[in-house]
Amino acid sequence: MTHPTAAVDSGLLSPVRAGTPAEAATDDTAWLQAMLDAEAALARAQARLGAVPQEAADVITDAARADALDVRALALAARETANPVVGLVKAFTAAVAARPGGPAAAEYVHRGSTSQDILDTGAMLVASRTLALIRADLARTADALAELAARHRDTLMAGRTLALHAVPTTFGLKAAGWRQLVLDAEARLGAVHDGGLPVSLGGAAGTLAGYLQYARLDAAPGADDGSYARRLADAFAEETGLARPTLPWHALRTPPADLAAALAHTAGALGKLAADVQSLARTEVAEVAEPGPAGRGSSSAMPHKRNPVLATLLRSAALQVPALAAALTQCMACEDERSAGAWHAEWQLLRECLRLVGGAAHTAVELAEGIEVRAERMRENLALTGALTVTERLAAVLAPRLGKAEAKALLTKVSAETAGTGRPLHTILAEEEALTGHFTAAELAALCDPADYTGAAGELVDEALRPR
Amino acid sequence: MTHPTAAVDSGLLSPVRAGTPAEAATDDTAWLQAMLDAEAALARAQARLGAVPQEAADVITDAARADALDVRALALAARETANPVVGLVKAFTAAVAARPGGPAAAEYVHRGSTSQDILDTGAMLVASRTLALIRADLARTADALAELAARHRDTLMAGRTLALHAVPTTFGLKAAGWRQLVLDAEARLGAVHDGGLPVSLGGAAGTLAGYLQYARLDAAPGADDGSYARRLADAFAEETGLARPTLPWHALRTPPADLAAALAHTAGALGKLAADVQSLARTEVAEVAEPGPAGRGSSSAMPHKRNPVLATLLRSAALQVPALAAALTQCMACEDERSAGAWHAEWQLLRECLRLVGGAAHTAVELAEGIEVRAERMRENLALTGALTVTERLAAVLAPRLGKAEAKALLTKVSAETAGTGRPLHTILAEEEALTGHFTAAELAALCDPADYTGAAGELVDEALRPR
Amino acid sequence: MTHPTAAVDSGLLSPVRAGTPAEAATDDTAWLQAMLDAEAALARAQARLGAVPQEAADVITDAARADALDVRALALAARETANPVVGLVKAFTAAVAARPGGPAAAEYVHRGSTSQDILDTGAMLVASRTLALIRADLARTADALAELAARHRDTLMAGRTLALHAVPTTFGLKAAGWRQLVLDAEARLGAVHDGGLPVSLGGAAGTLAGYLQYARLDAAPGADDGSYARRLADAFAEETGLARPTLPWHALRTPPADLAAALAHTAGALGKLAADVQSLARTEVAEVAEPGPAGRGSSSAMPHKRNPVLATLLRSAALQVPALAAALTQCMACEDERSAGAWHAEWQLLRECLRLVGGAAHTAVELAEGIEVRAERMRENLALTGALTVTERLAAVLAPRLGKAEAKALLTKVSAETAGTGRPLHTILAEEEALTGHFTAAELAALCDPADYTGAAGELVDEALRPR
Amino acid sequence: MTHPTAAVDSGLLSPVRAGTPAEAATDDTAWLQAMLDAEAALARAQARLGAVPQEAADVITDAARADALDVRALALAARETANPVVGLVKAFTAAVAARPGGPAAAEYVHRGSTSQDILDTGAMLVASRTLALIRADLARTADALAELAARHRDTLMAGRTLALHAVPTTFGLKAAGWRQLVLDAEARLGAVHDGGLPVSLGGAAGTLAGYLQYARLDAAPGADDGSYARRLADAFAEETGLARPTLPWHALRTPPADLAAALAHTAGALGKLAADVQSLARTEVAEVAEPGPAGRGSSSAMPHKRNPVLATLLRSAALQVPALAAALTQCMACEDERSAGAWHAEWQLLRECLRLVGGAAHTAVELAEGIEVRAERMRENLALTGALTVTERLAAVLAPRLGKAEAKALLTKVSAETAGTGRPLHTILAEEEALTGHFTAAELAALCDPADYTGAAGELVDEALRPR
Repeated sequence: MTHPTAAVDSGLLSPVRAGTPAEAATDDTAWLQAMLDAEAALARAQARLGAVPQEAADVITDAARADALDVRALALAARETANPVVGLVKAFTAAVAARPGGPAAAEYVHRGSTSQDILDTGAMLVASRTLALIRADLARTADALAELAARHRDTLMAGRTLALHAVPTTFGLKAAGWRQLVLDAEARLGAVHDGGLPVSLGGAAGTLAGYLQYARLDAAPGADDGSYARRLADAFAEETGLARPTLPWHALRTPPADLAAALAHTAGALGKLAADVQSLARTEVAEVAEPGPAGRGSSSAMPHKRNPVLATLLRSAALQVPALAAALTQCMACEDERSAGAWHAEWQLLRECLRLVGGAAHTAVELAEGIEVRAERMRENLALTGALTVTERLAAVLAPRLGKAEAKALLTKVSAETAGTGRPLHTILAEEEALTGHFTAAELAALCDPADYTGAAGELVDEALRPR
Repeated sequence: MTHPTAAVDSGLLSPVRAGTPAEAATDDTAWLQAMLDAEAALARAQARLGAVPQEAADVITDAARADALDVRALALAARETANPVVGLVKAFTAAVAARPGGPAAAEYVHRGSTSQDILDTGAMLVASRTLALIRADLARTADALAELAARHRDTLMAGRTLALHAVPTTFGLKAAGWRQLVLDAEARLGAVHDGGLPVSLGGAAGTLAGYLQYARLDAAPGADDGSYARRLADAFAEETGLARPTLPWHALRTPPADLAAALAHTAGALGKLAADVQSLARTEVAEVAEPGPAGRGSSSAMPHKRNPVLATLLRSAALQVPALAAALTQCMACEDERSAGAWHAEWQLLRECLRLVGGAAHTAVELAEGIEVRAERMRENLALTGALTVTERLAAVLAPRLGKAEAKALLTKVSAETAGTGRPLHTILAEEEALTGHFTAAELAALCDPADYTGAAGELVDEALRPR
Repeated sequence: MTHPTAAVDSGLLSPVRAGTPAEAATDDTAWLQAMLDAEAALARAQARLGAVPQEAADVITDAARADALDVRALALAARETANPVVGLVKAFTAAVAARPGGPAAAEYVHRGSTSQDILDTGAMLVASRTLALIRADLARTADALAELAARHRDTLMAGRTLALHAVPTTFGLKAAGWRQLVLDAEARLGAVHDGGLPVSLGGAAGTLAGYLQYARLDAAPGADDGSYARRLADAFAEETGLARPTLPWHALRTPPADLAAALAHTAGALGKLAADVQSLARTEVAEVAEPGPAGRGSSSAMPHKRNPVLATLLRSAALQVPALAAALTQCMACEDERSAGAWHAEWQLLRECLRLVGGAAHTAVELAEGIEVRAERMRENLALTGALTVTERLAAVLAPRLGKAEAKALLTKVSAETAGTGRPLHTILAEEEALTGHFTAAELAALCDPADYTGAAGELVDEALRPR
Repeated sequence: MTHPTAAVDSGLLSPVRAGTPAEAATDDTAWLQAMLDAEAALARAQARLGAVPQEAADVITDAARADALDVRALALAARETANPVVGLVKAFTAAVAARPGGPAAAEYVHRGSTSQDILDTGAMLVASRTLALIRADLARTADALAELAARHRDTLMAGRTLALHAVPTTFGLKAAGWRQLVLDAEARLGAVHDGGLPVSLGGAAGTLAGYLQYARLDAAPGADDGSYARRLADAFAEETGLARPTLPWHALRTPPADLAAALAHTAGALGKLAADVQSLARTEVAEVAEPGPAGRGSSSAMPHKRNPVLATLLRSAALQVPALAAALTQCMACEDERSAGAWHAEWQLLRECLRLVGGAAHTAVELAEGIEVRAERMRENLALTGALTVTERLAAVLAPRLGKAEAKALLTKVSAETAGTGRPLHTILAEEEALTGHFTAAELAALCDPADYTGAAGELVDEALRPR
């Protein structure tokens, strides 16, 4: 069922994620389904421990379908209790009751449970599913960047610092750096994801008292011994595919904070890629261009432009996620056994982080796989500064003859002269009295050539790409 | 037309705004309509200057209906160009062309324009319409708080600092403070709103060159004189109801930053109200309770609870908006005539700020109009600390006799004694040798009574409520 | 007195403000002095109302010198009470007592007052003094930018959107835009500053009860009538030069939130200037360069570089302030009559915002006054794209002949051809059959010249610079 | 040497860290020393590889003392180049030259290096040293909380959700939760710290070209083979005690982002502790009190108050750090081989995060070790709601008889009655017809007793405290 006025957000204002798998994995329907999955998994877990009849768990599981509920109606009802689970339980209980065998099963829906167990477990399911998408896209991005780095291991270009040419570098080293950041991000997401996002199972105030009470009433075996709570959590974790936490975390918000941190890192990593692509794509630089399928990057007013659209989308996410993540982290400082507001602030923030990063990762694949690299233009641009990019080397070579300070002063002088007159640096140097007899003209020319002043760039690329 | 898979966000995770007028005023359809309103207003403005035939402007205006376009399809298309306007212009042009008189009119759609003019003008229309809703709700909230303040001008309660009873205050002064913050917020929104959110009119790079070019081609009167740009901006402003900016602001982002600041302030103001309501509603304090219509505040697990749901919703907004607003403000530091990403990051952030604050303001009305105040309980709670809340007064009275330091020392000692033994402070004081002969027992008892130690609370309420 | 280990922060990690007037205006000594100024002004205000002997107020005023106190010792003592005022009052009382006439005067120090009145009033004095510095620097910056805009009213350059050349613009329009943002920032600071930052005067819990109690004890005229509180606030405001607030604002945090908003806006405005300067200073673009006094911008490793150091400093502030300001704003959502933490979080955040923005404004003066503009290089860069920057005009001119869609398609085709072959666009166009007979070669060449396609840039500059 | 006007920040506005070890470990002197340590370690590393004479490395190491330099002068000089290292190298070179053997050694200072290598390596040293302090304090805090949890394993208290009593819990479970968060934080800091914060070693643009050039000039063995860069990095890592990164990270900002994330988490964890302590310390609740040494928590105006000062300090940090950390993370999206501003924005943010969290951790030890727990008061408060906290259990017990919906309706009714009349719930229930014959009065009274409705609280504490 969809509600007639449901188009609150169809992605119009967030192209970085519109239509991407991460958007679908985090939309209201996905969230609703995840909460129903949590309800069903809870019933099955209780059934495994003898606290719920297996048939009831089966009916509940069969009924747990988001498309049978009106998500908009649930959204509206959530204002009454500040969370959507109260209405969800009511609607879902009715849906269960309407099935064959349902009236009996309906008594077992949400048994002993509390809104937060369902919403938090649902959130972890959504997060876990979305992280799988993101990580796969990051892996593809890293692969594409590895190929770029290998292919351009020795592609000479200007290294730039504080917006200006500094010393030479290679495009391979740059691409290897982008990849390293993507791997860093993947590792941080992996630490959260593989370590196991936890189920939420605490009952009304984190003691699981309701679950235990029902288990006793239902004469579940061992309901009175101290291990029931642990066994229920284990079973719930197995049924959901999530992990069992040490303690109920209604008010111990490490899981969302961990997600926030890893997602912000990922946004930053992709933001670095975007910043560099934009820097290199500028008209005057033109060292890279974005892939250009039909329509991509076209401007409404200027038919000739091929805008760096993918980098733009990445950057739009990188500018949003850290702030959203900070707001999520701040919700850790919550009061009591369940906060009156700090918990409620998390949901949309977490979704937004997941889908922005998911959209960005999806976009990054396209960028990394399709980027056009113009090695020739890189050389031409480097030649604009030419020998001035190797004054560091000259300083090193001249210092033993002249002393460090005097070498530096000389180079500042001749740099200004070459910049002002356009005459080659090595020619000017050859005229310097202080150097007479120490270097041949050919030696000076060789020292002034940026081409072989890339230091350890090649080895660094090799090292970074080495499988480990 | 709605797209089958459009339920990306129906409000499920954001109850503070689900179903509120602000949500409707900022949803994708509203945003789309506002952009179409901008296109239509632009055509009419050009028609007023003779640059577009009036009939074309009329057809364009008639066609400018969001329900005729597929918002989800536009959202998906936006990934090609990083903004939704390119696709919108295409779809809208087709919609115009399909009307009687449309083929001719279609040539005049988006004439001389650029995506950013339409999106930014649309955003300002959305913001302006939503601010009107927010301000009306703030005004109602302020009225309700004024009534509370007047009614409880002299309702005695404990003033609390650093979580503990300090000296007495009145509930009237507290309510007057809440109202003052709401008025402050309203004033800040008003400064942005009444001052006039501006149309965006710059053309491809902020020079209006496209508009001028078409005007010349279309032989608009005076198209060649320097005033055409200003006249067009004036006409566009009049047709939209927005203001004319001094300069095109594609890359001068004062308007969204102003909105961010005023909305963050409003969220903070309502967050203060929420924090206090929660502080006073705690079970042990119980000095206020939220209004309790059927269903409101009920807990899924605990049927007896009447949760402070409205304050919870307010706080959920207050915890999100400042961070979102900061991200918006950070987008001011954008490059060139149009940023590759900083602009694109703004849209969803702005919408989220508008609808969270709009939802919160709507919620605040209900809270302020319905809050239950328990004056009797306030007195009882104050009695818990009793005379200890007026040790400040005692210090003042004793200092002239004993010196400031000795008076303080004495009071620390007797405070500890009364706290430890439960004996009344005035009894203990009466036994102090240092005071013998200086005060009668009755005088000491009167000095120890918190009831008349509310300072200027009453006058402050009167002053704050005085119409200005 | 300075403490031996006091170099906690001498500016080493924050060059944007190191040694600037704003740093001095916000350092610990300045803050301490401002709090002492508040104590002295309070005593004088009380003296004006007859609640404190004039001689006592005089002694207190004379003693209110930060250099007489050990700021480090006060900092350390602040951990005992979570604020520095308790220790300050103790040390200051001793300093007063040590003066001639001091023992009597010492009884009147901090009379009826509370830590927050002193700290908040001190903070407003610090803010007010620092805003004066910032505004003066913004005014100088705006003047320099106005001169730039006027001088370069018609200096042709490429307008850039999404990192690429779009249509032509002028450097004058760009500089006028920077200035407009600076004026916007100045106006927002002015609204806070001129409107009057308020004194804080509430006493222990915002009722002024302590002040009233002492006034009665001291038999101040009219101490018992309801106007005493207002008269005291008026006198305190006059003595400090600050404004009188409607209500005590211990827990109504509009003043710091207003400062945060205006300072974040200013940081953003200067961040835009920095982003553009960096974009234009890049080696391949080289359209502007920073002023280069001896030493400025030199690199430790590369003697030839002249780094855009000033823009770098501005950007370092723009990347910090919005987040700090958001944290400040978030402190509005505080509980009770004085928060246990939200108030305490504000102080360092406010100082950091003030001094980062103050340092940035000071830096901006130097940048705006000294920036080197290379008009010749702007023309050369524009020529890189040449006629492609005016395809918008061509689309306009061709549309009436070919229809909008076909004109766009033709231009996309010929744009690709000119980009691919390097042949001039007008030559290619002249060969197009569809245009034969409609345009002469000269007309096409003129249409393809970017030089006169700057739209209303000149008029916009004139309009923006017009005095108002 | 200290500069006469150096008291820019002595901690006056930040009591949470004033005088704590973390403040000292992050002050300007510590930062300066760490940068000098980096210079010295670099010289020694180069000496190990034969690129610098050992005697020169020894002189450089001996000279690397922060107290020999004027930190304020370096701070002021940093404005010329936007970073403090250029001035530092100059001053340090002079200091080396002034030593016996210095003139020769001075030629080897900063050999082949760049500002960022020194500043970033210094920053990692500062971070590493401060993390050691923080982790030790977290470990002590966790130990104290473990003891609290064990001691109060079965101390009954009200569980609170949305500000109201929910179902019973134990103080042991609450303390175990606080400890769990502290352990979570420690683990996240440990992952960053133990994994190894990296040295920064890239040279001017991340290729190590300068280092290689000098090694060749100095005829270091193997300087021409590809492994020199790696060997130098290994030696530098060993000399500093830091780790070797895969790639130079001048523009790959994972290390500061990792620090930001872990520090924000820690601030949040301690913020939760603070929020709960404040909630429980409120006058009406009074279930805990802070430790009260002489002076601690005293109020300037109210001698009787013992404010929760430590929790206030913790909360002041928790309200700042996440925003600062977000700004740090946002700096990941930087351009080129070294950013013009994003790098520069990091330094103060990182320091502030380190010292706020370090101060908070230090404060938390005192709080956790000294907190006073009032078990009797916890019972009294729970009795305020009494049987209403176990309506969940009643619902479970009654549902099989009445059906879930009817049971809930009945409980809502009787809850209202007991709340309204004060009559015991079990008495009212005993009068309900629907229950007649099903439960004895004694059974109903037992069901209404909160004491044994703490679910798995005890087992959860045991589980959480079990060594692993």
